[in-house]
Amino acid sequence: MRITALAGGIGGSRFLRGLLRAIPDAEVTVVGNTADDITLHGLHVSPDLDTVMYTLGDGVEESQGWGRRGDTSAVADELAAYGAEPRWFTLGDRDIATHLLRTRMLTAGYPLSAVTEALCDRWRPGVRLLPMTDDRVETHVVVAGDGDGQERAIHFQEWWVRLHAKVPARRIVLVGIEQAKPAPGVLDAVAAADVIVLPPSNPVVSIGPILSVPGVRDAVTVAGAPVVGLSPIIGGAPVRGMADAALTAIGVPTSAAGVAELFADLLDGWLVDSTDADAVPAVEAAGIRCRAAPLLMTDVDAAAAMARAALDLAEEVRAR
Amino acid sequence: MRITALAGGIGGSRFLRGLLRAIPDAEVTVVGNTADDITLHGLHVSPDLDTVMYTLGDGVEESQGWGRRGDTSAVADELAAYGAEPRWFTLGDRDIATHLLRTRMLTAGYPLSAVTEALCDRWRPGVRLLPMTDDRVETHVVVAGDGDGQERAIHFQEWWVRLHAKVPARRIVLVGIEQAKPAPGVLDAVAAADVIVLPPSNPVVSIGPILSVPGVRDAVTVAGAPVVGLSPIIGGAPVRGMADAALTAIGVPTSAAGVAELFADLLDGWLVDSTDADAVPAVEAAGIRCRAAPLLMTDVDAAAAMARAALDLAEEVRAR
Repeated sequence: MRITALAGGIGGSRFLRGLLRAIPDAEVTVVGNTADDITLHGLHVSPDLDTVMYTLGDGVEESQGWGRRGDTSAVADELAAYGAEPRWFTLGDRDIATHLLRTRMLTAGYPLSAVTEALCDRWRPGVRLLPMTDDRVETHVVVAGDGDGQERAIHFQEWWVRLHAKVPARRIVLVGIEQAKPAPGVLDAVAAADVIVLPPSNPVVSIGPILSVPGVRDAVTVAGAPVVGLSPIIGGAPVRGMADAALTAIGVPTSAAGVAELFADLLDGWLVDSTDADAVPAVEAAGIRCRAAPLLMTDVDAAAAMARAALDLAEEVRAR
Repeated sequence: MRITALAGGIGGSRFLRGLLRAIPDAEVTVVGNTADDITLHGLHVSPDLDTVMYTLGDGVEESQGWGRRGDTSAVADELAAYGAEPRWFTLGDRDIATHLLRTRMLTAGYPLSAVTEALCDRWRPGVRLLPMTDDRVETHVVVAGDGDGQERAIHFQEWWVRLHAKVPARRIVLVGIEQAKPAPGVLDAVAAADVIVLPPSNPVVSIGPILSVPGVRDAVTVAGAPVVGLSPIIGGAPVRGMADAALTAIGVPTSAAGVAELFADLLDGWLVDSTDADAVPAVEAAGIRCRAAPLLMTDVDAAAAMARAALDLAEEVRAR
């Protein structure tokens, strides 16, 4: 079975790990979000791609869901001793090796997709991992200025990591998105899929940018395969992260039904958590088959059960 | 007293540390060799500048004479796990922070001299440290090819670190030297010096490149200050490193007198080790005032005594 998933970082990775546990022989292509990418200390960091790679390659620091297992911070401590900015994003030592390789290959002229493939040669994540685009796209968040009344746009990571998404986002801007082209293989993977999955990733800043790459949303919409998604919102709050702040910025209610509506044009099926079963009728009224199931990824088995539920829903849609 | 020194890495740094101990209020400018510089994993590494900076800034790993004290190798281990080349040059984690900052600033357009000054803001080495040039110069070593009879030129670091200088060097080539300009301040520091010192650094690949930057050798020759040097060769062998292999490559005998002859056009005074006292007449016959003194830098005090002997010799020359 060919499954194509559009995935962000932690939530997407944990779901994908469950998917591989549930369907070991599935042929999975992951289209990863790269709009969170950021240049730090001259290094090209791709947080979401790395989280997928480390998680599926059994190298992730489980306690935080990102970064390398057991990583140290000798480089970061030394950069701090130099007074190097920014200080609000700490890169682990092992993680830096990944960024050094990526940056070196990008500087040498390789596209990010080729770099990602080379890095995956080591990690063998069990999926084909594609960046959404080889072009540079950056999510910027427009916030109120400091006292002077002027708005300013900051990199998503600064808003997320430094400001903990506590400063209200007035708008979210995907810098470079109009010029971006889907990376090689992305449209083919969407067109050839038996099932297209939207894991419980951040709908605004993870799945949103992927679908915003010109051509991707259309490809998903016209694809023959069922498109099923899993709500990242449970009981009116994000399972993790600060997805509510991002949803508020684009005027979408923080609810399982609200996110379904955001993707209404392309969703065939939507899974909500058991506690949100009351949202099912509203989602179905929008023409999306909706089922309730436990959506807390407490462990890999729980994630595998979610994957099975999503694929069952896809079958149900297909048989309709 | 204004002292200008042309220095390589370990030998130069240890001598300079002794010099600062001997004459704490000296105004010392160090013109550092940058022809050993190498790009590793996309990072601009300046081994000699860093060795001076770390040694005089009390951050050096004393046991090896270079690198950061107590450094770890998490990044290098991880790069090795990726199979990243080269494997023969291991960068420590703390050291990598220095290279990240340097590379970032160079990429942003700052010249190496400005970068070096910025790094020294933290290390406060007690000297003004200038790269010999802001232009890229690389020492390459021409060696016999592997079986095919074709010569090949390899970076000095590959010859030195990977091959341990055991493959005979046919020629030593300073790539880019003709186009190099002395870094800002270098010629002024030579012209304004009360004493010009050649520490016991490698005469071929450390002091040689500095003097080969167009304009530097002439400036040293015409400077009013006495030029005194210390032999890096004791008893026919280099004190450390593999200076003999480099000397052989340029046809200079591995002896205290041989090195003096290499610098005969600019030397006013030359210190040889006590065990090489028999070389004094030959050096003096070449018009260079020569004295014998203990030249083993067993500790900082020994290096300080060497510095005092060098400055005494400079006074002797000046009074002549």
